[in-house]
Amino acid sequence: MAFEITNEFLENLVGFIDKKNDSKIKNIFEDVHFADIAEVLDEVSFDEAIYIIKLLDSEKTSEILTELDEDTREKILENFSAKEIANEVEEMDSDDAADIIGELSEERQKRVINELEDTELAEDIKELLSYGDDTAGSLMAKELVKVYETWTVAGCMRRIRGQAQEVTRVHSIYVVDKGDRLVGRLSLKDLIVAKSDQKIADISKAKVDAVNVNEDDETVARIMVKYDLEAIPVVDDNNVLLGRITIDDIVDLLKEEADKDYQMAAGLTQDVDSDDSIFELTKARLPWLFLGLIGGVGAFIIMEGFQDVFSKYASLFFFTPLIAAMAGNVGVQSSAIIVQGLANDDVKGSINSRLLKEMLLAALNGVILALFLFLFVWVYEGKIDLALAISVSLVVVIIIAGLIGTFVPLFLNKRGVDPAIATGPFITTSNDIFGILIYFMIAKMILGI
Amino acid sequence: MAFEITNEFLENLVGFIDKKNDSKIKNIFEDVHFADIAEVLDEVSFDEAIYIIKLLDSEKTSEILTELDEDTREKILENFSAKEIANEVEEMDSDDAADIIGELSEERQKRVINELEDTELAEDIKELLSYGDDTAGSLMAKELVKVYETWTVAGCMRRIRGQAQEVTRVHSIYVVDKGDRLVGRLSLKDLIVAKSDQKIADISKAKVDAVNVNEDDETVARIMVKYDLEAIPVVDDNNVLLGRITIDDIVDLLKEEADKDYQMAAGLTQDVDSDDSIFELTKARLPWLFLGLIGGVGAFIIMEGFQDVFSKYASLFFFTPLIAAMAGNVGVQSSAIIVQGLANDDVKGSINSRLLKEMLLAALNGVILALFLFLFVWVYEGKIDLALAISVSLVVVIIIAGLIGTFVPLFLNKRGVDPAIATGPFITTSNDIFGILIYFMIAKMILGI
Repeated sequence: MAFEITNEFLENLVGFIDKKNDSKIKNIFEDVHFADIAEVLDEVSFDEAIYIIKLLDSEKTSEILTELDEDTREKILENFSAKEIANEVEEMDSDDAADIIGELSEERQKRVINELEDTELAEDIKELLSYGDDTAGSLMAKELVKVYETWTVAGCMRRIRGQAQEVTRVHSIYVVDKGDRLVGRLSLKDLIVAKSDQKIADISKAKVDAVNVNEDDETVARIMVKYDLEAIPVVDDNNVLLGRITIDDIVDLLKEEADKDYQMAAGLTQDVDSDDSIFELTKARLPWLFLGLIGGVGAFIIMEGFQDVFSKYASLFFFTPLIAAMAGNVGVQSSAIIVQGLANDDVKGSINSRLLKEMLLAALNGVILALFLFLFVWVYEGKIDLALAISVSLVVVIIIAGLIGTFVPLFLNKRGVDPAIATGPFITTSNDIFGILIYFMIAKMILGI
Repeated sequence: MAFEITNEFLENLVGFIDKKNDSKIKNIFEDVHFADIAEVLDEVSFDEAIYIIKLLDSEKTSEILTELDEDTREKILENFSAKEIANEVEEMDSDDAADIIGELSEERQKRVINELEDTELAEDIKELLSYGDDTAGSLMAKELVKVYETWTVAGCMRRIRGQAQEVTRVHSIYVVDKGDRLVGRLSLKDLIVAKSDQKIADISKAKVDAVNVNEDDETVARIMVKYDLEAIPVVDDNNVLLGRITIDDIVDLLKEEADKDYQMAAGLTQDVDSDDSIFELTKARLPWLFLGLIGGVGAFIIMEGFQDVFSKYASLFFFTPLIAAMAGNVGVQSSAIIVQGLANDDVKGSINSRLLKEMLLAALNGVILALFLFLFVWVYEGKIDLALAISVSLVVVIIIAGLIGTFVPLFLNKRGVDPAIATGPFITTSNDIFGILIYFMIAKMILGI
């Protein structure tokens, strides 16, 4: 737990690299976890990172490579030959190996796979690469401990000793019939507690949760989280056992999903972090800002259309930022609740009942807020008709903003589009325009102009 | 995997409850996972839920109770006597038991603990309740498999058979010295692969990650995710083994954190979901809307101060929604990147270098956007001085909005306040006001009025 990247550590490290003092470098990384080494590589220059990776044992570097973020890894692997990548990959679990090879160009993928000495791993990787991007197959690893239902506990223990060497973590032992179809599971604990002459079929649990290899990865995540599973077996359409998915990959997936939703809500079109280049960051930020610009131009055109009102009721114009802000805030609040509900699978009832509820809610909020605004305008401007016009419009704008915020994500979800899009500048921008339009129309009506 | 709550299922269930056909009710829940039963309870009326819970075996209902959301559980437990709660709790792991007892009033806590027949569990629960809310101690369970370093593999296997019965999942076996201090760990796999007369000290790994019982829970989550751990032992200041934390609790914690950040960004002050009452939802939404209202009034006062400009340059006023929207969007984008970076612990470098980078980035985005706006205003309004004034102001507003969005979360974080607050309506509202003020000041200056 204790490792922390200090300036002193980095200075020492860079000094050793300058002097090519390889034994010292190996020495300071001796007891450091590969996840920490991956972080160190992010702190040093690119050439230094390459130097370190090439120096350390492939047993360690293969783990480091899986921990690096994609951009850094890609750049580092460009400096590796196909043979060197193959050597790293042979130390990895099949799922990590497939992920990393999948990031290479197609031509390089073939060359690396050809260089693999472990032909079984090569076959496994080819199989894993064949599954679609967001499927259970893309998450699974081929390594697992498998026993036949006809075996005895003693025979099973003997075989497991062999298989377990290759499997980093044994969560469950999967029981298959002679056609390799999944028929049950047992835990190492069950095996230890059982008598050695018992049949596997008698001590295994027949009820075993499994997912189809083509199942959507987010569904797999939801199942594993809901049922508190640490690993889940993956089967094909005939129930033949193909691999297993472990919870650590699901944790990563959930984190990515949460980050993506958050960024979408903040108006970032792609996964960026604060250390990315200005060019990358601009690419992520500019599209939504353009949308905002277009929305602003729309608002301009609407306001210009109402400019004859200015001579009599100039104050109406000074409240447009307030109206726009409220429409935007209410829209984001209501869409965020729906988006989260959809993600957690707990949005029940019809769209109509949702909209009715949101209407009541927005009306309640709107009336409370409008009351304060009414008092302010009345006292400050001394015109009760203006105060009334502005407050009534505010209530209507808030209700409509709430309805749009509720409807849009539900509609997108029905159409198979990720509803999280709806929480970002999309809702704010459209609500700005609608809000300002409705505001002026209602105000004009009430004021009789 | 196959269970889904259908209308038919619910109709049958409610029919059986009406007729008090207990055997049929037990029957339809026979093969249903407790996580699914918890969802069913959310779909039926409160009285029906109570009826079902009281009917099923406590082995099953104890699991169902842990799966329910806090509100529903609280309401159900109000209908339980202290003795009934104690019966449920005795079937639970110590961490779940402590969580559920912790939700009761202090007086009820004592009564339930007094009713527990398992005095060891009672002691464990008292200990777990004594740890602070956001600490490792509040996440850990007391159940674990512990062996002494002086034992042999065979002796160990014998003892483990006993201990393992109580532990739902054996991730690691923790090795302690005679003072119960943590000195190593081994996996069940290591034990199976070892020879039966080997000493535990010889086959265990001396390097074992552990966290202090007072460590912050989010730090524990970060460690477990970073190092891909499925369980981590918890020790006191003297390295005495107290309990262990498993990854399923961390998954729940991460989900809660992500939800909280997302809701904060959307302007919701507390954890709500779409099925909450209108009153609950109003409580979560209204405070931020009030902030927006106050911001809007601020914008009104600023614009009113510039109203003499209207006769000559009315269009300036029609662009305020655009300026406010851009200031808000840029602010949220830049703060979201910082907030996420802080959460992932990868914001490096000084505040000044961050601000400089954001300034360059915002300037780049601003100039591109301003160019388009310049052309639009020039062509549409035919006034080049107006076009220039509006575009230059836009660039300045975007830069300042970006700086505020970067600075505020970094500042809050330094002060120990959750920086996620900064992404919500807080940034939008303050940027609205600043943006509009700066816009009019610069435009006035350029237009010489």
